[in-house]
Amino acid sequence: MTNTKEFDCEKEVCEFIDWLSEIGKTGDCGITRVLYSECWIEAQSRLKDFMEQKGFNTYYDEVGNLFSRLEGTKYKDETILSGSHIDTVVDGGKLDGQFGIIGAAIAMEYLRETYGPPLRNIELVSLAEEEGSRFPFTFWGSKNIVGRIKENEVKYLKDAEGITFSQAMNDAGFGFKTEETIREDIKAFIELHIEQGGVLEIEGKSIGVVDHIAGQKRTIVEVEGEANHAGTTPMGYRRDAMHGVSKMIVDIMERAALYGDPLVATVGRVDVHPDTCNVVPGKVIFTIDVRHTNKDISDKFTDEIEKSIQNIAQDMDLKISIDNYMDSHPVAMDKRLIDIIEFKCKEKGIDYKVMHSGAGHDSQIFALHVPTAMIFVPSHKGISHNPLEFTEMEDLIVGVKVLVDTLYELAYK
Amino acid sequence: MTNTKEFDCEKEVCEFIDWLSEIGKTGDCGITRVLYSECWIEAQSRLKDFMEQKGFNTYYDEVGNLFSRLEGTKYKDETILSGSHIDTVVDGGKLDGQFGIIGAAIAMEYLRETYGPPLRNIELVSLAEEEGSRFPFTFWGSKNIVGRIKENEVKYLKDAEGITFSQAMNDAGFGFKTEETIREDIKAFIELHIEQGGVLEIEGKSIGVVDHIAGQKRTIVEVEGEANHAGTTPMGYRRDAMHGVSKMIVDIMERAALYGDPLVATVGRVDVHPDTCNVVPGKVIFTIDVRHTNKDISDKFTDEIEKSIQNIAQDMDLKISIDNYMDSHPVAMDKRLIDIIEFKCKEKGIDYKVMHSGAGHDSQIFALHVPTAMIFVPSHKGISHNPLEFTEMEDLIVGVKVLVDTLYELAYK
Repeated sequence: MTNTKEFDCEKEVCEFIDWLSEIGKTGDCGITRVLYSECWIEAQSRLKDFMEQKGFNTYYDEVGNLFSRLEGTKYKDETILSGSHIDTVVDGGKLDGQFGIIGAAIAMEYLRETYGPPLRNIELVSLAEEEGSRFPFTFWGSKNIVGRIKENEVKYLKDAEGITFSQAMNDAGFGFKTEETIREDIKAFIELHIEQGGVLEIEGKSIGVVDHIAGQKRTIVEVEGEANHAGTTPMGYRRDAMHGVSKMIVDIMERAALYGDPLVATVGRVDVHPDTCNVVPGKVIFTIDVRHTNKDISDKFTDEIEKSIQNIAQDMDLKISIDNYMDSHPVAMDKRLIDIIEFKCKEKGIDYKVMHSGAGHDSQIFALHVPTAMIFVPSHKGISHNPLEFTEMEDLIVGVKVLVDTLYELAYK
Repeated sequence: MTNTKEFDCEKEVCEFIDWLSEIGKTGDCGITRVLYSECWIEAQSRLKDFMEQKGFNTYYDEVGNLFSRLEGTKYKDETILSGSHIDTVVDGGKLDGQFGIIGAAIAMEYLRETYGPPLRNIELVSLAEEEGSRFPFTFWGSKNIVGRIKENEVKYLKDAEGITFSQAMNDAGFGFKTEETIREDIKAFIELHIEQGGVLEIEGKSIGVVDHIAGQKRTIVEVEGEANHAGTTPMGYRRDAMHGVSKMIVDIMERAALYGDPLVATVGRVDVHPDTCNVVPGKVIFTIDVRHTNKDISDKFTDEIEKSIQNIAQDMDLKISIDNYMDSHPVAMDKRLIDIIEFKCKEKGIDYKVMHSGAGHDSQIFALHVPTAMIFVPSHKGISHNPLEFTEMEDLIVGVKVLVDTLYELAYK
């Protein structure tokens, strides 16, 4: 058992967040720090200098993931990795990503100061990229570590200014991996992260122990009727695309509620044409985002709603085209790691919830290769990807403490 | 009874339309001819010259309505007026408005050539403006004739380039009326127009005899829920504005169908915020356009749907605001004139339909002061305000013939 009862890191967490958030600051509370930008380079090197001053060895891998290392004394080829991503969305908040890095840095120093060197190596990783905010590609950092990248997938991607991925990477001083190496020493990856949803806050829990990261299926549906004059077209002669889409949305939402948690279905984009008050809508394009932790269930659900959409379209003499453009599988977290985190929470009397993550995280990439777990702290009102992203300091500290205990269990025993 | 059995105006109608459509031509078939623009000036003066060459007296009123006159021999203070508007929407078709002018011009000449001078004056009017395409104001032409204008209503209105209404009018050589005069000599106004809807074509009728112009009620509804992450917000914790609006639209459409013709209800604009596939919609703004020929019924309907919208919002914990920004009353056409037009159709074996107009027309302004009627010809697929606006030549000719017979009845008897 660790002595983290006395561990008080409030000042440290608070100062560390503010200090790192200076880089890429937008407005009062926002951060914009996209892959390989000047801010990104500055944030990684500030962190590198800081960890070196604290006496940790640091190094970059080829693509720019930054590591800080505390050497193990006994199992030298076994590493417990913790961290998250340094990049942000445009005008994002102070916590998404970097809180997991800050938490792991504080934990690593605390463990060394309190217990000396661990049996296994502990490494902090500040992952290069997760958000896909500069280039249309996500999880660049973690995918490189576990060898899930083909150079051609990203090489020619361009950012909004026409700069290629390769150019941006080279300009920042990095390059593609020269060999297809996968780090075999990583025995566990633990990611501390804000929930980015409102469940923990609503249910009054301090910690979320993630058991699954949901799979995502995304679809674009185009519904075509006939645009007509709002005054001169009797109701019976209309082929109103928006009327049809309204029925489809009501149907999707009702079915989603019937399926129940953890299924979520969202119609987030609805583009109406011509979008004029006195014209019957002739065309509507809308998106469906479906997530679940079980692929069979989400497949069954999307099959059902597609059939229902087709039926509604047929009844209303509307043409439809359906494009299923994304289908990522759900990923389970490691059972043993979940048990350890749960045990640590119980030991400290922390009110936790075993839950899935509806959002994507680097952990879903790591989990395909190494035992992985995530520790969530509450997000106020579920707000994220927004300067208003906020978590009570008390909750942040509980998150760091649970991470400390988990890393102790994994690296010192 | 007129001898229009032998009247063949196909060539004349065809050439007249093409000749007048050269002015303001856009692309192959479109016309853009907004109030007081160069095209507008050219179209009015081309028409003026043409009618003078045909031997008719012509004159403008102060604001730019153009009249051509065939003097009556007996009832010199009684005038039968016919025509429509010379302006178009941006990239409109060849028929909306100017077909009513062309038809009346052809009819007037034919009547003079066949029967000599009438008992009452016949006047053709090429109305200055109906569409509201340049300035946010409609029926400028007809409102001036019947004295329904206050100078201050339009004086300071600006077009998209910042030119004031007054400036545009002065630049075109016109000005506000100096006296509040109303023409007392007008004993009837007859407007020939395309239907701008698909009813006559679908039902295989050649002529529509308009009995009412529908009133219009327009409403903007703003529905506010909470924008949330599509992945991390369970269905039960959502306040999805688009889900609510979908229920509202389905309800509005079902109630409209229950009310039956002539009620029409249209949700034409639906603006979703933030309109992103992975965010639960936090706000939706939509419009409702309701039309009916009976104000009591349209009021009852809009009351009902407002209550229903409020109930749906309450059930789903959504905030709403409702802005009823337009409420124009339905207008009845003159019973005696309707009877005359019906009689003329029956006499010639023309398949006609007594119907209402769901679209607005200058006739709804005239009808408030003088006996007024409208003659509709079919619109192919109901397309209007579009370069693809089209009516079979055969139908256009039947329209002109019915107008000839009607004007004969009114001015020669």
